[in-house]
Amino acid sequence: MVIDKLGSTRDRLAAAAVAEFSEHGYAGARVDRICRAAGANRERLYAYFGNKRALFEEVLAEQLASALDATPVIGTGPGAAKAFAAAYFDACLGAAVLPRLVAWEGLELAQPIGADERRARAGRKIDELQLALPGLTREQVEDLMLTVVTLSHGWVTGPNLGRIVTGDETAHARRRGEISRTAAALAQQ
Amino acid sequence: MVIDKLGSTRDRLAAAAVAEFSEHGYAGARVDRICRAAGANRERLYAYFGNKRALFEEVLAEQLASALDATPVIGTGPGAAKAFAAAYFDACLGAAVLPRLVAWEGLELAQPIGADERRARAGRKIDELQLALPGLTREQVEDLMLTVVTLSHGWVTGPNLGRIVTGDETAHARRRGEISRTAAALAQQ
Repeated sequence: MVIDKLGSTRDRLAAAAVAEFSEHGYAGARVDRICRAAGANRERLYAYFGNKRALFEEVLAEQLASALDATPVIGTGPGAAKAFAAAYFDACLGAAVLPRLVAWEGLELAQPIGADERRARAGRKIDELQLALPGLTREQVEDLMLTVVTLSHGWVTGPNLGRIVTGDETAHARRRGEISRTAAALAQQ
Repeated sequence: MVIDKLGSTRDRLAAAAVAEFSEHGYAGARVDRICRAAGANRERLYAYFGNKRALFEEVLAEQLASALDATPVIGTGPGAAKAFAAAYFDACLGAAVLPRLVAWEGLELAQPIGADERRARAGRKIDELQLALPGLTREQVEDLMLTVVTLSHGWVTGPNLGRIVTGDETAHARRRGEISRTAAALAQQ
């Protein structure tokens, strides 16, 4: 019972930390707000996680497991690339925490957190996409994946750009169409 | 003389504010650091700019005049789209302040700053691109522009993604090639 109780406070702190870092980034996040949201005190947070930096790294490492894992590659050829792109965009729309954490990480940290493990996970998804697109080189498949991920994250974390360039910041169907067409075009190189 | 001196303190404060907001975003920026970098005191800063929020909005509105203005459209057809994409990417690489401010804005603010004026400026560049790509609809040209801007900003502000997906976070030549190919493919719809 004691362990359950400890475990659940830790889980509440971790969940509150993910929400706080997603909303405010590393520098903007406040440990007091995390504790208040989790109904725990600062001493408990420091006992579990060390300090703010260690908390950031630990909860990000868990979250950054990646939306890629959840996005299947189905079929072959440009149609598979198109469907993959649309599905990844939808995964990001449905869980904006991941793209936001990645965007803060890019702006605030010199090095990505848990880079080697994340690279290995991305590599497995690139393997799947390579099987679906046998006419492309490995480098072309990597570049296609990076383009799909960058556009999906960019349009979820930066609606300001869509507002400035197209006049509409929340045109999800239009963005989904654009990312699908882009992926299909890159699959036909 | 007095006006010159006041003007120059104001300019130093504005320049220090751009650097501070680019590095740390809105929440992470510290008014004390801006004053120290500009060699001015807080009273002077508040007299010129009001408060931190007003300072942020004023210096961003100036900076966000946009790298688009500085990127020419030359020639016609897919070759023009390709050259435009490479030139815009290079402009972002050469002045990362703009993409970083836009990325912070996307993450931290509900609405973009000075949106109507920026939209009008982007519209003039879209007009140029439309003339170079007469086979595309206005919506296709807007989408092509948004894709080029999003990829350029994303790769300058988020080298972590390139590191995770392709193993190399600073492969500028490879990114330039990819964004050029993407723009050319979208120009051939």
